[in-house]
Amino acid sequence: MTAAQNPISAFTAAEAAAMDTALEAALQGPRGANPLVGAVVVGPDGRQLVTGYHRGAGTAHAEADAIAAAASAGVDLHGSTMVVTLEPCNHVGRTGPCAQAIIDAGIANVVYAVDDPHDPAAGGAATLRAAGVSVRSGLAAERALELNRRWFQAVDAKRPFVTLHIAQTLDSRIAAEDGTSQWISSPESLADNHGIRNRIDAILVGTQTVLVDNPRLTARDANGDATGKQPLRAVMGLRDVPADAAVRGDDGKVLHLPTRDPRKALSVLFAAGTRHVMVEGGSRILSAFLAEGLVDELIVYLAPTLLGSGTPALNGLGIGTLAQAQRWAWDAASGGAVQFLGRDLRLHLLPEEATVPHRTQDTPAAAQSPSPQPTSTDSLPVRTAADTAMGGY
Amino acid sequence: MTAAQNPISAFTAAEAAAMDTALEAALQGPRGANPLVGAVVVGPDGRQLVTGYHRGAGTAHAEADAIAAAASAGVDLHGSTMVVTLEPCNHVGRTGPCAQAIIDAGIANVVYAVDDPHDPAAGGAATLRAAGVSVRSGLAAERALELNRRWFQAVDAKRPFVTLHIAQTLDSRIAAEDGTSQWISSPESLADNHGIRNRIDAILVGTQTVLVDNPRLTARDANGDATGKQPLRAVMGLRDVPADAAVRGDDGKVLHLPTRDPRKALSVLFAAGTRHVMVEGGSRILSAFLAEGLVDELIVYLAPTLLGSGTPALNGLGIGTLAQAQRWAWDAASGGAVQFLGRDLRLHLLPEEATVPHRTQDTPAAAQSPSPQPTSTDSLPVRTAADTAMGGY
Repeated sequence: MTAAQNPISAFTAAEAAAMDTALEAALQGPRGANPLVGAVVVGPDGRQLVTGYHRGAGTAHAEADAIAAAASAGVDLHGSTMVVTLEPCNHVGRTGPCAQAIIDAGIANVVYAVDDPHDPAAGGAATLRAAGVSVRSGLAAERALELNRRWFQAVDAKRPFVTLHIAQTLDSRIAAEDGTSQWISSPESLADNHGIRNRIDAILVGTQTVLVDNPRLTARDANGDATGKQPLRAVMGLRDVPADAAVRGDDGKVLHLPTRDPRKALSVLFAAGTRHVMVEGGSRILSAFLAEGLVDELIVYLAPTLLGSGTPALNGLGIGTLAQAQRWAWDAASGGAVQFLGRDLRLHLLPEEATVPHRTQDTPAAAQSPSPQPTSTDSLPVRTAADTAMGGY
Repeated sequence: MTAAQNPISAFTAAEAAAMDTALEAALQGPRGANPLVGAVVVGPDGRQLVTGYHRGAGTAHAEADAIAAAASAGVDLHGSTMVVTLEPCNHVGRTGPCAQAIIDAGIANVVYAVDDPHDPAAGGAATLRAAGVSVRSGLAAERALELNRRWFQAVDAKRPFVTLHIAQTLDSRIAAEDGTSQWISSPESLADNHGIRNRIDAILVGTQTVLVDNPRLTARDANGDATGKQPLRAVMGLRDVPADAAVRGDDGKVLHLPTRDPRKALSVLFAAGTRHVMVEGGSRILSAFLAEGLVDELIVYLAPTLLGSGTPALNGLGIGTLAQAQRWAWDAASGGAVQFLGRDLRLHLLPEEATVPHRTQDTPAAAQSPSPQPTSTDSLPVRTAADTAMGGY
């Protein structure tokens, strides 16, 4: 059953209120490879009994979190309704299938917002129905999609969502003639970038950047201390990563991708569990991802400075004439397309006409499109809603 | 007598109200080589009798305009007070000295906002006093300076105020590899640019731009028709301007400056009466003005497009390392430093720490500074007030 088959009246006011609570609870979860999910169990009288959310990879899913909370509190869930932002899973992974946990708890009804896009997990709803649980879906579907749009897009495209990061002067230089680039951007821009690093799965740079800038690629706070969650550090290119490169870090964990092909790099990253990668440079890597149409969002930190020469942000996209220029759209979501960060302007853009593909069980053909800019009618426009899920990013 | 010697209490409420009216009236004048000036005559009872403003080069000054209005209406100005935004002139130019006209009209008192910065004109106040007219100055001085800040700056520096115009992609290209550049900017940006052309004295481009783009350099409205006031068309460079170049226009009037030296070009333009010039390109000319520190404001139309290659906006400023980067400040005035114009962003910047030099009769030394960024304490920060005088520009 899909959202299209459920008129609004298929849901009660109590269920709608519970979904609001579940969406809010989801936001407490960490950003990363796993989606944000929230769950609320409602009693037969409409009262919200317990709330759960997903706390990150390897921990209980939101449904199990809620059921565990009920068990701790001695709350009987028999005959209740589970309201959850994503279809309960059916797979036996690190945390067990939620569908079975729901059945075991005696929950009588399940209302969820959007289908789980994973093939292995699909079928949670069918399992529940087979066990006699009433299942309805589509409540607050747009908001739930927006909550995890980068994750949905990555799962559908079977490659990580790609954020391209450019820290440049007004004349689009990312380093001066002598190679100096620290720091073109304002402290506020750097902090913003570290905030993004803290929420993604991987950072990717080229070997040239490692050799010239020797970056650590860690997420750090205002004091320069590494924050709790760290992205995977990935370096792409044919040259070796020096044994003493800062990117190796204390743990020596760096993923070297010995290729210049962005598609190959993304394929390896996806297989490694990366659903969201930020590409930070340099010119060759930035240009390669853009030329291949593999960039899902562009974040430009624009410093009010001029160099006149030095390293340009981009060094070729295979474009010969103005009519072929890549066109981008300002992202009205995510706290605004344009904002000041200290003295810098932060620009947030999406590919023009970009849409988030989302597969439903009824439309597998549309979902299998490998294009980053599908035009299928069941896709969700990226720019429809504020990107509150990413905390203003 | 200067503003510093006049406490606020030296002016009556009626005079302050008349100055408000005069400042508003001044805005009705055309922008260009002549400053915006307004004048109001107040009767002994505080009533505003007549208002005048300066309608452009070769026409009556604001004071004469007001006196003429009184004559037409049969209003006797004996014993009245003239309130004017700029010191009455003392020179016999195209329109005769205003100081004498005021004396002849029997006006008993003059209140003006700021001194006339011209050497030949200076002394209007002295002439009035010598004839027994009471003269006070400094009322609403900051607003009156702001009204014509580009003009004051040009007169003080003895060179035109320079607005640099860059229409570029996100990666700072002003043309694609094959030279195509029409149009990188949105229609709204082009309209904005023509609005500026309509208010300035001259447009300057390089011979390369004439040879490649063959621009008309006229101010045109939304229908592509030339507007009433047209800027001087100037072309700088050692090569000839072709006989059939569009820049020659119907009247054949184009000023060719056979030099690559921006200072020389500005010197010729200033002598020709230009107080405000917009430099539109291409890369060599833009870079030359920036490298010489001769740019007073920077307007960037930033299209949300990428080319990856082609002509960079700038091709060298003599900067080798990041610490030498030119730093610019966002102009909070003029309708905002950043605004959307259709799909483009319009960025408005000023040289960091830029201040408008303004000479008073008491401080001639400060006024004679040739520096575009003086630090004398009597200068007026550019960013103090909204640039309403330039109609949002």
